Amino acid sequence: MQRRCARLDHLEVETESSETDSETESVRMRCISCKEEYGSRDAGTCNVCYEEASETEEELKREIEDLKAKVAFLSVWSPAFFSGRPHGSGFTDVVLVAVEDGPDGGPSMPVSAHRNILANRSPVFKAMLENEMEESRSGTIKISDVSYDALQAFVNYLYSAEASLDEQMACELLVLAEKYQVKHLKAYCEKFLVSKLNWDNSIINYAFAHQHNAKLLLEAALSLILDNMDKLRKRQEYSEFVEKHPLLVVEIYEACLAKQENTAAPKDTSAKS
Amino acid sequence: MQRRCARLDHLEVETESSETDSETESVRMRCISCKEEYGSRDAGTCNVCYEEASETEEELKREIEDLKAKVAFLSVWSPAFFSGRPHGSGFTDVVLVAVEDGPDGGPSMPVSAHRNILANRSPVFKAMLENEMEESRSGTIKISDVSYDALQAFVNYLYSAEASLDEQMACELLVLAEKYQVKHLKAYCEKFLVSKLNWDNSIINYAFAHQHNAKLLLEAALSLILDNMDKLRKRQEYSEFVEKHPLLVVEIYEACLAKQENTAAPKDTSAKS
Repeated sequence: MQRRCARLDHLEVETESSETDSETESVRMRCISCKEEYGSRDAGTCNVCYEEASETEEELKREIEDLKAKVAFLSVWSPAFFSGRPHGSGFTDVVLVAVEDGPDGGPSMPVSAHRNILANRSPVFKAMLENEMEESRSGTIKISDVSYDALQAFVNYLYSAEASLDEQMACELLVLAEKYQVKHLKAYCEKFLVSKLNWDNSIINYAFAHQHNAKLLLEAALSLILDNMDKLRKRQEYSEFVEKHPLLVVEIYEACLAKQENTAAPKDTSAKS
Repeated sequence: MQRRCARLDHLEVETESSETDSETESVRMRCISCKEEYGSRDAGTCNVCYEEASETEEELKREIEDLKAKVAFLSVWSPAFFSGRPHGSGFTDVVLVAVEDGPDGGPSMPVSAHRNILANRSPVFKAMLENEMEESRSGTIKISDVSYDALQAFVNYLYSAEASLDEQMACELLVLAEKYQVKHLKAYCEKFLVSKLNWDNSIINYAFAHQHNAKLLLEAALSLILDNMDKLRKRQEYSEFVEKHPLLVVEIYEACLAKQENTAAPKDTSAKS
């Protein structure tokens, strides 16, 4: 409502004598939003549409506030929240244990959790826990090839849909998300890794995305690789990559050729999708 | 990007010879948004602000999609989902039992739940379950003065932040939300009841809101009552209301007088808030 008043106050129309066609610009208006003057050539919307758009924006913001409150309500305290507190770990009924490969690879500290949360978030855990498998009987789920920190972050995410990521953690969590079919976490990690992509890390991310079936990351990395083929092919790590993953390199070259063909015949770009 | 093109295509400026000041309207523009023609007096925003607003709207919509996905991820299947399935009720470790007052009031069917979910959503359940009280030892929580359906809906809400409401259900759930301090549900029910307010049900809602400390509903109902005092005072139920809740009626009259004073001295309305 305040905006409506502001509009009436600020709508100033200044007229200068317009004698030639090119001088239609001399009608100046004041933008309701930025309050700057503009001419008819820079006109945007009529004021009815402006009012409607403002209302839509307010509605969307209210919806966001409601959804944020819902997310806060639905988040569950991770059992880590209870560790060290007198009355146990918040009714947990299962533990996860990280088992790392390598010389030091033994079981690390267990991470407590709730069967109902694990089963809700992951169809793999659900099957494991509902079907009287070893994990269900013993109440212990062993998770291989993962650091304790990543396992703790993984469990936290299952409770709160939040994780503090760096590239290493995003990769570890993506692997876990893929393995335990936690789609929401996988998408979260992929988005993060895409945001950190550059031509320097594009090849390693491409290989990683290929290995873990991360389509969004794969496409973004491939696009960067294709844009920087000349630079990349001169690097030592590229030769190593060719030796290690020749099939992936074949795919890259095929994409490169397809791109060249599309560029050569731009009329066909619509068929790409 | 498409909009940017549309803008260039559709921005048509038609000029007619403007000789008098009142004819500045003769410069016609086409609104980028609704595609209708308008004159300078109906101008809204410049095109830069229009573009920015469109981008903001897209961003807000993306944020909403992300939040909706997060809500879906964080929702937990209510144990009702598992009832009748072969492998039990999804690792539940507590039951709630509705105990209704009155001649038929005996314990009804138990509603299964998880201690960790109850403790997360309600500080009252948390204290009850963590502090070795009778409920914690027996694994049974008795809930008085509530129907089985309302209890089931209450538990469902604790898992999913969703409830199918009518006015009766909203009242029952608001009472439970108040008792077990589930703020999110209380706000949800209040909003629903406010949306169903009319002058006909304003008094009963006012009394209900007062009893259960529902401030939003209280204010909305009071406002309706004040606007319809003449009609309401002639009704039989008003006399009953006066007899039953004289203190509430005093409050209504006080608000009524305060409103009259404010109306008499409109310069003071800013002091209302």
